[in-house]
Amino acid sequence: MSQNEPTLNTKPLKATSGEDKSKYFKQTVEHIDITKMPGIVDIVQSFGRLAFSSRDLHRAAEIYERMLRDKECGVILTLAGSMISAGMKKVIVDMIRNNMVDAIVSTGANMVDQDFFEALGFKHWIADEELKSGLYDGELRDHAIDRIYDTLISEDELRVCDETTGKIFDSLEARPYSSREMLREFGRYLDENGGPKGDGNSIIYEAYKKDVPIFCPAFSDCSAGFGLVAIHAAKGDGPKVTWDGGKDFYELTQLKIRNSETGLFMIGGGVPKNFTQDIVVAAEVLGHDAPMHKYAIQVTVADVRDGALSSSTLKEASSWGKVDTVYEQMVYSEATLAMPLIVGYAYHRGAHKARTGKRWSTLLEQQPAGAA
Amino acid sequence: MSQNEPTLNTKPLKATSGEDKSKYFKQTVEHIDITKMPGIVDIVQSFGRLAFSSRDLHRAAEIYERMLRDKECGVILTLAGSMISAGMKKVIVDMIRNNMVDAIVSTGANMVDQDFFEALGFKHWIADEELKSGLYDGELRDHAIDRIYDTLISEDELRVCDETTGKIFDSLEARPYSSREMLREFGRYLDENGGPKGDGNSIIYEAYKKDVPIFCPAFSDCSAGFGLVAIHAAKGDGPKVTWDGGKDFYELTQLKIRNSETGLFMIGGGVPKNFTQDIVVAAEVLGHDAPMHKYAIQVTVADVRDGALSSSTLKEASSWGKVDTVYEQMVYSEATLAMPLIVGYAYHRGAHKARTGKRWSTLLEQQPAGAA
Amino acid sequence: MSQNEPTLNTKPLKATSGEDKSKYFKQTVEHIDITKMPGIVDIVQSFGRLAFSSRDLHRAAEIYERMLRDKECGVILTLAGSMISAGMKKVIVDMIRNNMVDAIVSTGANMVDQDFFEALGFKHWIADEELKSGLYDGELRDHAIDRIYDTLISEDELRVCDETTGKIFDSLEARPYSSREMLREFGRYLDENGGPKGDGNSIIYEAYKKDVPIFCPAFSDCSAGFGLVAIHAAKGDGPKVTWDGGKDFYELTQLKIRNSETGLFMIGGGVPKNFTQDIVVAAEVLGHDAPMHKYAIQVTVADVRDGALSSSTLKEASSWGKVDTVYEQMVYSEATLAMPLIVGYAYHRGAHKARTGKRWSTLLEQQPAGAA
Amino acid sequence: MSQNEPTLNTKPLKATSGEDKSKYFKQTVEHIDITKMPGIVDIVQSFGRLAFSSRDLHRAAEIYERMLRDKECGVILTLAGSMISAGMKKVIVDMIRNNMVDAIVSTGANMVDQDFFEALGFKHWIADEELKSGLYDGELRDHAIDRIYDTLISEDELRVCDETTGKIFDSLEARPYSSREMLREFGRYLDENGGPKGDGNSIIYEAYKKDVPIFCPAFSDCSAGFGLVAIHAAKGDGPKVTWDGGKDFYELTQLKIRNSETGLFMIGGGVPKNFTQDIVVAAEVLGHDAPMHKYAIQVTVADVRDGALSSSTLKEASSWGKVDTVYEQMVYSEATLAMPLIVGYAYHRGAHKARTGKRWSTLLEQQPAGAA
Repeated sequence: MSQNEPTLNTKPLKATSGEDKSKYFKQTVEHIDITKMPGIVDIVQSFGRLAFSSRDLHRAAEIYERMLRDKECGVILTLAGSMISAGMKKVIVDMIRNNMVDAIVSTGANMVDQDFFEALGFKHWIADEELKSGLYDGELRDHAIDRIYDTLISEDELRVCDETTGKIFDSLEARPYSSREMLREFGRYLDENGGPKGDGNSIIYEAYKKDVPIFCPAFSDCSAGFGLVAIHAAKGDGPKVTWDGGKDFYELTQLKIRNSETGLFMIGGGVPKNFTQDIVVAAEVLGHDAPMHKYAIQVTVADVRDGALSSSTLKEASSWGKVDTVYEQMVYSEATLAMPLIVGYAYHRGAHKARTGKRWSTLLEQQPAGAA
Repeated sequence: MSQNEPTLNTKPLKATSGEDKSKYFKQTVEHIDITKMPGIVDIVQSFGRLAFSSRDLHRAAEIYERMLRDKECGVILTLAGSMISAGMKKVIVDMIRNNMVDAIVSTGANMVDQDFFEALGFKHWIADEELKSGLYDGELRDHAIDRIYDTLISEDELRVCDETTGKIFDSLEARPYSSREMLREFGRYLDENGGPKGDGNSIIYEAYKKDVPIFCPAFSDCSAGFGLVAIHAAKGDGPKVTWDGGKDFYELTQLKIRNSETGLFMIGGGVPKNFTQDIVVAAEVLGHDAPMHKYAIQVTVADVRDGALSSSTLKEASSWGKVDTVYEQMVYSEATLAMPLIVGYAYHRGAHKARTGKRWSTLLEQQPAGAA
Repeated sequence: MSQNEPTLNTKPLKATSGEDKSKYFKQTVEHIDITKMPGIVDIVQSFGRLAFSSRDLHRAAEIYERMLRDKECGVILTLAGSMISAGMKKVIVDMIRNNMVDAIVSTGANMVDQDFFEALGFKHWIADEELKSGLYDGELRDHAIDRIYDTLISEDELRVCDETTGKIFDSLEARPYSSREMLREFGRYLDENGGPKGDGNSIIYEAYKKDVPIFCPAFSDCSAGFGLVAIHAAKGDGPKVTWDGGKDFYELTQLKIRNSETGLFMIGGGVPKNFTQDIVVAAEVLGHDAPMHKYAIQVTVADVRDGALSSSTLKEASSWGKVDTVYEQMVYSEATLAMPLIVGYAYHRGAHKARTGKRWSTLLEQQPAGAA
Repeated sequence: MSQNEPTLNTKPLKATSGEDKSKYFKQTVEHIDITKMPGIVDIVQSFGRLAFSSRDLHRAAEIYERMLRDKECGVILTLAGSMISAGMKKVIVDMIRNNMVDAIVSTGANMVDQDFFEALGFKHWIADEELKSGLYDGELRDHAIDRIYDTLISEDELRVCDETTGKIFDSLEARPYSSREMLREFGRYLDENGGPKGDGNSIIYEAYKKDVPIFCPAFSDCSAGFGLVAIHAAKGDGPKVTWDGGKDFYELTQLKIRNSETGLFMIGGGVPKNFTQDIVVAAEVLGHDAPMHKYAIQVTVADVRDGALSSSTLKEASSWGKVDTVYEQMVYSEATLAMPLIVGYAYHRGAHKARTGKRWSTLLEQQPAGAA
């Protein structure tokens, strides 16, 4: 093989791939379909008169509804945690289909290792209760099975996913890309190869069709990163496909500049939360007087007392000039409980019906706004 | 001003900079100096016979000591959260000075917005208790003061930091850089400008002097990001300084390939944790049979039940082939309590004395290991 | 007034009662009515194929359903936290009405300060968001308003509740009572005074009508405690109404001995959890070979890493011989989110329909089982 | 055996006692001795200039020191969680010996199942890491070993403890007792039987010698409860030793009335926290205008967002008129980390030296204060 052709070793060395996994793989994760659950509205409405997290959840759902009814407002969803392997894929696909979200900022794992992975026809599996103890992880290792808390993945299949991302990168013109541009190519790949396999739902694919940009501000920190590493190993200092992380920030800032009214729907914290909050400041740095995010809700169990960004309150963000405090609400709940209820409430209240998609991907292909 | 010169608007628009901040800025954060606290050893040793977090902390300290005594082992520190503003700067500087760490993988905020910020002569301030409630964040905003839970920052000063990063980028040759290469330039900048100001301690500077590489795998998600955005706005598609995020992953993987035995000391989770754990797989993807991280300790209050990576156990990482399970320990504690005790224990036990620095920055300037 | 007549000073001294509270009291807590929400079933069923807390919640709901379908099984509900002020009253009243619970073990606050309080015609109020910060607690104090996180109570009304418990104690024959016997008198008081006021729902009243015993194993730690203190102050060593805490334990143990198959539905931990788990051992101590609790579910956000009982796993309880491990499930969720979903699921699945109430109060008025 | 003699079945039925436990019992918990660790002062002092939990811990330590220097102030320690099995016994014994605490309010488990248990010569054992997973609890059950998270107890020995409490109750005059009176008899028992065995330290014994009252407001919820149940089973309605829970509240309220200035040092929450905060209101109910607790510190990891009392802020308590807000501080830390540092700081600062014990047990044997 020539020195210059990137290549991935897709056979897991440390694991004995090919081992029979059927003992562990008995039932797949099935993504919840909130469009079939109109009963959510009554429940969430009733939550509004209770206390603690249920009352907060109701208020968050109301704020999300308000974002959708505010036609000027661009809605940005940020995703940390392992949400797709946990069955939230169709919730997000339905958000895209129904014009309930205009941009997504996510960890790479959610988008590449999980959504794109499923679009290739692979599945996530429900782990037996006892596997959560961690005592069987060596055994899983021996079967080339990866574990996310209570969920299992075939590492052989994940390597196919790695390899596919590598192939897509190989097919691209050698230049720097934002993660958004790259993920758009992932969408195009699915489109040109018969659409998403498996249950037919894919966030990357749906976003591609609806011109919803997806950003992964730590893009090398996922399955795609392996493809990027392989390119570096093969190409050295020569011309190559690279991920230009600064371009991500630049592009998302462009969206803020051109559609100044924004609302945030944050699942977990991490880089997606911080990065997205920061575009207000970035717009200012470019000389545009962009307003703070007008609406902001966050679902998280992170504890504010560790002082980290993931748990920092949306009020704290207002001291940074990032988030306005009139319509902000944090919900203390593991996300698989709260997200279907919040999105389902807004969906069945019909908040999205008068809304058209903002097709922000198109916006980004126009001439950018320079420094003012 | 010419179209091509990057420029930052460094005057906060939304805040009235120049307002008198003295009402809020009364006492500065003073970084803890564990080198003067030999009493830590007895305390931590006694913790080993207690229960719960104290016992776990002792075991983590012992594992860290073991990493340091294992001469083959390269020690990688990962940092999430706001650790420098919280007074951990000198702990980390002492780790570098005493050959107790060989590479750092961090959020950008810790390195740029906080360490580099202090090296420019600025300070973090202790907030009055009542400010933690969030009810005064509008007032802080009006005074151009940013809040991190119980700590305050002058936004005017932070804008100077943004501006300085922009200037450094401007001075560089137009090409893609890893965050490590860029942060090395930050170190060089400090060196060429009289060393760190303020208390004279700086992680970036010390790492520069000791050839300890620092990676920020989500580098655009910090003060440096504003510089990158400004460059994009000014240069468009022309030649420019860019951050090549894939190169970060490639370089850290190189280190794993060339120094196959590694130990992780993780403060918090987030991208630094995941990214660093992943280099084992990346090495494998490049065809090198790198062993799992041999040692791993993590200090975090994240709850495993949210299924996210930050909270995922080190046992779970072993199912992914990333972390060996013999010497791993998680400590459930807010980091400012646990980190000084763990590092102080290893320091006063003298574990580092027989150790020389690995000077990994030098290694990265040699010819890289290609795909095997 | 004679030395021997117990008396309560029911006028709050430190607070200025009589102040206008209308500024704070704008909207009351309204208890959720799960009987009108059949949509819960589909949601919870779908949760079973997701991950993390939603999957756990589904399994807990299934185990609760299983308890109800197991005709031999006596179902014991344990309640910590502030569940009634938080709007869970009707959920529990519906459980009693529909034979979905056979005994309740609770903190005193839930039963006396909250349920009995509402049965006297008083209400809980929704606090404005900003009051949660704690910065206005002095102001609330000045208005004789007590706060439970995001909920407000009139202290004047609470003093009426204290006084009423004192009056009921005064009306009783001087002898030691279990908390169950005393709470039964509270139920009788409501029955003889026209039933519960307000929304007409009361756990104490409904339990009285359906012969469901209620235990408060730390009974002096609530509004009733003030009545007990006043009696002590008035009567000294003379004959008087007293709370015999040992009798509580004895009575609950009797239930375990006579209805050996049991299931636990635990909201939070605390004394109610520990006390109820312990009856297995107490039965053994009396020479009866009572089986472990066959089913056990717990909703809690307590973190296992503090080693406390509230957070201790149900598996850990099995090492103590208290809880069997085949049908046990913990759900990591604030209770106002999870409890309506779990109870609503079982209710609308009709699990209770073939079940008749065990009327355990009657059982306790018969001759007790002695030591075997 | 006569019907009237209480008897306990002290042979665990479900467990095979007598099984060889040596495989599990390898190393005992050794209680930390803070009197030998003067280095704590520097560490905690330095914490005061950091952020997050370390800064809070410093402030809590300072408030504790302030309580001790305030000669009018009576210091009440409240204990939830499993603190004695976790190695905190000597810390508390040293507090008593050095006049650093005037009353203790605890869960029964800490006092009876753990402190008294050790005073009988038994030990707590360090569990192997893997036992924490819960997967071996059945195996532990088979060996009659009980588990508290990462700590093991011989159930055979615990049954001896149960039996001893039963014997002490049998030896007492038949009348109602407060838990304080009963625990004083436990102290007397140890005194008359050669003092505490094992390491010679016992909280119950030391408190007996120094006239420090100990209250367990949920006294039947521990090893002592089994003795109380056995008495009920044997004596029925006849004269017998009983625990009068109302008397506990009455006695603690007496202390507040007679020594109106008080400070709280709370480890965890639960009934001990609530019960002790409530005595301010109880004093008021008896017509005495007792001031709020002047000082209050709490170490806990409970999350305020569940709305429960354990996690409720000390500010919230001020809305109830229970805790003053000038000197209050919560510390977010598992207690085995924070408690030795807080107590060690105050001890080595010598705050207790000018202080004499208040010998409150003596106070309670005098004529009580009636209703005013």
